[in-house]
Amino acid sequence: MKPVIITSVSEMIKVSRSIKTSIGLVPTMGFLHEGHLSLVKRAKQETETVVVSIYVNPSQFAPNEDLDKYPRSFKRDIQLLAELDVDYVFFPDKREMYPEGYKTWITVEKISRILCGKSRLTHFRGVTTIVTKLMNLVNADFMFMGEKDYQQIVILEQMIKDLNFKTRIVRCPLIREKDGIAMSSRNKYLSSQQHEDALCLYKSLLMAQEKYEEGLTDSAEIIIQMKKLIERCNGVVDYIEVVDPNSLQAISNLLKGCRILVAVKIGKTRLIDNIEIN
Amino acid sequence: MKPVIITSVSEMIKVSRSIKTSIGLVPTMGFLHEGHLSLVKRAKQETETVVVSIYVNPSQFAPNEDLDKYPRSFKRDIQLLAELDVDYVFFPDKREMYPEGYKTWITVEKISRILCGKSRLTHFRGVTTIVTKLMNLVNADFMFMGEKDYQQIVILEQMIKDLNFKTRIVRCPLIREKDGIAMSSRNKYLSSQQHEDALCLYKSLLMAQEKYEEGLTDSAEIIIQMKKLIERCNGVVDYIEVVDPNSLQAISNLLKGCRILVAVKIGKTRLIDNIEIN
Repeated sequence: MKPVIITSVSEMIKVSRSIKTSIGLVPTMGFLHEGHLSLVKRAKQETETVVVSIYVNPSQFAPNEDLDKYPRSFKRDIQLLAELDVDYVFFPDKREMYPEGYKTWITVEKISRILCGKSRLTHFRGVTTIVTKLMNLVNADFMFMGEKDYQQIVILEQMIKDLNFKTRIVRCPLIREKDGIAMSSRNKYLSSQQHEDALCLYKSLLMAQEKYEEGLTDSAEIIIQMKKLIERCNGVVDYIEVVDPNSLQAISNLLKGCRILVAVKIGKTRLIDNIEIN
Repeated sequence: MKPVIITSVSEMIKVSRSIKTSIGLVPTMGFLHEGHLSLVKRAKQETETVVVSIYVNPSQFAPNEDLDKYPRSFKRDIQLLAELDVDYVFFPDKREMYPEGYKTWITVEKISRILCGKSRLTHFRGVTTIVTKLMNLVNADFMFMGEKDYQQIVILEQMIKDLNFKTRIVRCPLIREKDGIAMSSRNKYLSSQQHEDALCLYKSLLMAQEKYEEGLTDSAEIIIQMKKLIERCNGVVDYIEVVDPNSLQAISNLLKGCRILVAVKIGKTRLIDNIEIN
């Protein structure tokens, strides 16, 4: 059945406060792919009422980034969500979310300044702020997020813990295309040659896992080899880091359960990926 | 009846989530006076379950401020709250509120940087952050705050609106001693001579009201006269400002409904006061 579409903040509050069951939130920027849909399916399994938000949040884009050209497909998104029996879609506009005179921002120190936060200075401030607004508006008990945006999940978990929000994050696995590329709305920007090149992110991560299994644990050495592989495929490395999965701090030796995170530019498109080392 | 005293975050969450009635929160730093008690009485009138928090929040004190010597009187506070039939007192310690690795802060731009924010740079960031934590932990429907801390109320209202929190602030009037001094835990720092001197804050505000009634509306002129009065009483002016009551922006002419806010040092003690011009 088609979900109920809510476009105003006041209506979203009215609806969410009248729901007596558990509420699951899946925050998205639309242009839904299998990655998003896997979150929705998980939400349907684990909560009684599911709200999917579709909002391309301007505050997490820097002025030089792709806000204006970010892909949109609202009609198709609704069809996909209807097939999954989603109850509500929250689809506000900018005036609803950031009315004139808007002034409030949430910052998670340190872990917002590393990795993606180094090149995207205000990105995570935009994410933490919009997610807080959505959690409050939807009165969410659970929020379903993919490990594709690994740093984002760690930052939001820290915020929820620090500020004592009731919402709990349910981490869901990263979903890949058959060829291995991590699902992302930004893959749409890639030409077919660039798509081919972009496979290097995952390939470099798989290579790291292999090297680890062969006994190589030195982070610096593995990063050098990953960089070479990525550059051979015309990728420009923003960062490759081996980190502790909880603190996101760089670690000098790979060990079971650590994460390797990469950000790479393929042409003008910046892509991220990560794996857990096992 | 003696209130139930809760000292841990986990217990506060458990209790607040089990309450099925409306919940009123009165956030305090303890050392309760009639000002606080007027908030509690109002909360008792308007909500079914009342939680008073007592927590001297370190993050709203700068290193050079009076955190360590801030007056405390927990036993007496509990007696006073028992007389008012308060249901719960939330009395956490610093480890509960800011555990190791704490990283998250809420900032309300612009209006946190003026007035008291000019000399107390991180004060309001500490206030917005702790109040968010308390609202979440107590699951508060209403929060009762005094207009003594006028800038604080405006900042918190802005934050609640911007982040779409469900809690509503109930503004309560500033309460004065018989001699006119605004009630404040910091009045305890004053010697009897200083207490006498400190009456100049309210006297200067009353003078402004009188001048306004006589037809003087020029903010600059009124501020000069107020400053003279305060300095005659050994007060050192931090600021005197005539402001729009909603935006807190300085206005050049007094008009009905505007606020005059003052901050004055009497000896080492910094005091604030304000009135609405009518």
